[in-house]
Amino acid sequence: MAKVALNTPKGTRDFLPQQAARRNYIFDTIRGVFDTYGFAPIETPAMELTETLMGKYGEEGDRLIFKILNSGNYPEKYPFDKERSIKALSRINSVKGKKTNVFLMDLIQSEVERVDVANYDVALNKFNYAISEKALRYDLTVPFARFVVQHQNELSFPFKRYQIQPVWRADRPQKGRYREFYQCDVDMIGSNSLLNEVELTQIIADVFTKLGLPDVSIKINNRKILQGISEVIGEPDKLIDITVALDKLDKIGREKVEAELASKGIGVEAISKLGVLFENVSLESVSNFVATSEVGLKGIEELKTVLDSAEKLDVSICEFDPTLARGLNYYTGAIFEVTHPDFPSSICGGGRYDDLTGIFGLKDVSGVGVSFGADRIYDLLLDKDLFPAQVGLSAQVMFVNFGEKEAAQCQLWAKKLRAAGIRTEVYPDAAKMKKQMKYANDKSIPYVLLVGDREIEAQQPTVKNMETGDQNAMSIVKLIEILS
Amino acid sequence: MAKVALNTPKGTRDFLPQQAARRNYIFDTIRGVFDTYGFAPIETPAMELTETLMGKYGEEGDRLIFKILNSGNYPEKYPFDKERSIKALSRINSVKGKKTNVFLMDLIQSEVERVDVANYDVALNKFNYAISEKALRYDLTVPFARFVVQHQNELSFPFKRYQIQPVWRADRPQKGRYREFYQCDVDMIGSNSLLNEVELTQIIADVFTKLGLPDVSIKINNRKILQGISEVIGEPDKLIDITVALDKLDKIGREKVEAELASKGIGVEAISKLGVLFENVSLESVSNFVATSEVGLKGIEELKTVLDSAEKLDVSICEFDPTLARGLNYYTGAIFEVTHPDFPSSICGGGRYDDLTGIFGLKDVSGVGVSFGADRIYDLLLDKDLFPAQVGLSAQVMFVNFGEKEAAQCQLWAKKLRAAGIRTEVYPDAAKMKKQMKYANDKSIPYVLLVGDREIEAQQPTVKNMETGDQNAMSIVKLIEILS
Repeated sequence: MAKVALNTPKGTRDFLPQQAARRNYIFDTIRGVFDTYGFAPIETPAMELTETLMGKYGEEGDRLIFKILNSGNYPEKYPFDKERSIKALSRINSVKGKKTNVFLMDLIQSEVERVDVANYDVALNKFNYAISEKALRYDLTVPFARFVVQHQNELSFPFKRYQIQPVWRADRPQKGRYREFYQCDVDMIGSNSLLNEVELTQIIADVFTKLGLPDVSIKINNRKILQGISEVIGEPDKLIDITVALDKLDKIGREKVEAELASKGIGVEAISKLGVLFENVSLESVSNFVATSEVGLKGIEELKTVLDSAEKLDVSICEFDPTLARGLNYYTGAIFEVTHPDFPSSICGGGRYDDLTGIFGLKDVSGVGVSFGADRIYDLLLDKDLFPAQVGLSAQVMFVNFGEKEAAQCQLWAKKLRAAGIRTEVYPDAAKMKKQMKYANDKSIPYVLLVGDREIEAQQPTVKNMETGDQNAMSIVKLIEILS
Repeated sequence: MAKVALNTPKGTRDFLPQQAARRNYIFDTIRGVFDTYGFAPIETPAMELTETLMGKYGEEGDRLIFKILNSGNYPEKYPFDKERSIKALSRINSVKGKKTNVFLMDLIQSEVERVDVANYDVALNKFNYAISEKALRYDLTVPFARFVVQHQNELSFPFKRYQIQPVWRADRPQKGRYREFYQCDVDMIGSNSLLNEVELTQIIADVFTKLGLPDVSIKINNRKILQGISEVIGEPDKLIDITVALDKLDKIGREKVEAELASKGIGVEAISKLGVLFENVSLESVSNFVATSEVGLKGIEELKTVLDSAEKLDVSICEFDPTLARGLNYYTGAIFEVTHPDFPSSICGGGRYDDLTGIFGLKDVSGVGVSFGADRIYDLLLDKDLFPAQVGLSAQVMFVNFGEKEAAQCQLWAKKLRAAGIRTEVYPDAAKMKKQMKYANDKSIPYVLLVGDREIEAQQPTVKNMETGDQNAMSIVKLIEILS
């Protein structure tokens, strides 16, 4: 057998038992909170039709979508003459220093010489489609929009759903950025009520409290306030540019943001007006700032309602941030971002969008939702040593195997322990004691049970506490009591 | 915006809330049982390197692997002259009645004319690799083998893992066969002990008992018995052919199996000897049949050990089946298959394999495992109406929304209910009562809470039981008591 590279593709990862268990703990915690608020799970396929995804994430996004080759392997499938093919395809070998995938382009290029006419984009699309009509989902939002429109007659609106699934992006991998990662999205669609925004703050607070991170901040802004600001500075049409620039304030600083604004054609006067906000960003000062903008005041009002209601429900971690814009430009109302003082990037974010399903032909359906970044939360919990000790403990109890007769007794007792929900292993081979103890130790199994002739006769195993080293005879009933 | 097809790709599915919740119930049940036996979860990426997967599933399997295009979209990425490209690519349009993907082949074909020499397979591989170096996993077994070899120094052996993840196959979709489906695999690797086989019968029994399907059968066979049989009939080299044919006995009947055996060059005498087994397949008769084969008797001994131990542990659903062979030919010892009288195909299966990791260079590691077919189990539970009623109930309680003031009180009470783990919704809008009640009804929410002035004053909501229609004032404490 030829030697094979033992690796996962670039930017993807295996999860070993402890990592997988810890990730499951995060997913289960998030899912548990979503459940208590009456959100229901849905799932969509890993693949979507290419046309469903393309054009929804901007040019950059389109490039980062993983495309799946149509079934069958072209060269294998196509019934062309083998002898001639041998000659043709082998040419790849002879092109020194040239990337092999350029070969395909050479072919297309040579074809270019021979033909005629028509529309480049149509042809290009057709060509792409000929190779690939399916793609891996890039996020959960667009598939969700497709899902809502496709199944609108099977759903109860307002529709509350959550979705915890992986997404794939052909991004350049780097620390903390992967090509496969999970998103945990929760959305309420088909209701304009601000109650939904309030509920999301509660959900965020519950999730992070349960994960041992009560010290997160929920930064809140409202797109309407940003709109008001751009009106007041006399640049109502530059909302997107202003939003995009403001979003970078934390990362690149005020000066560079101002430079970016200028480069977008925003006047010196407008920029200097905006400056006030960089200095004093209290809700009061912003209220005053947008006092002449109707939409701006509406945004302030919405924001206040959400903050007040959240406060009354003991969600005390919300914080107005008028520079919060987030890159995505489909938010129309509330904007959320959750940060932790010990983590450089946001660990959850979202907002209100008024026309998510419009791209698939269903107009005027408003929704609001947030997405939890499971991978970042994982890194943060690991960093702060906040995973509960029992998470990732595969077994609580292990029976040492002294031989056939003893193992038979162990199996009977193990059955009782398991019936009581206690995670129990019987070491499968009558290996050397040292080897079995090492195994228990490596897996941090807290109790090891020794069963020899004496224990069988007395009908109780000897229980070794692996932390203290203490050994005591103990009935199975008693052991169940202790471990339950 | 152009009109977009509202569909998932052929052979893939969305899961609506109730379906998703029911699937989660199956996964959680299976996962819960795996946990009590001390198995630990792992995850591998959806994508593997193409070379990791190719050649592991036979020719047919290779064709059914979904390949992922290397990042970037070739025509877009390649810096060729736009004007000339326009002409070339548009030719696709002018080829009437010709499938568009043939275009690519035409290009290769034309290139074929121009070049020279060498090895077809190498060139073909290079070409394939130039287009696609990653592929979607086809099963969990090969990625698991890759995982074990890659991480061998990070794992404790014997290694007990489970893995519940989707796999993808470019199969022709049909009823009950999808292009994306989940596998739930549990394997113990690095131990020859038959205790593992016994444990798997316990796990199978536990899973199906918990799912309300105690009437499954675990059919058990042993590859060594099959080997013994082929020795006894004088065709020791035809083991695979005999195995493949025997595997079809249930589906195509004895006559066709015999015809297939003959077509594989197995003699008339040998086939007629085999006939005894079709008539009397008791463990005793098979024992006698293979009495002259050492390996056959070893198989009988292993099988008896597993059956006896399972029996002692109250697993009473095991059943010897000497015609059980399963298609895959890497099993070396025990072979399992779980069936249910009301379902046409197996719902779980697996066996002992002695050289799974050999393909990745780690020799002599024995393993044994089974895979649960979640999609089939889903169909069976649905058919027999065995999903617990509460599975898929997104909320247990819904507050009707009469307005801002009332909703504020509802939110406070909802907070208490949720803190007690009760899945609670507050209807977000002060919509018409009829609309809100319809929503609760459509979602089968069992209790609807009405909160008006009177209820706020008395500090207890009116609780409407949606099944009986009864309405009673009730304190939140009392309601929690009832629902917990």
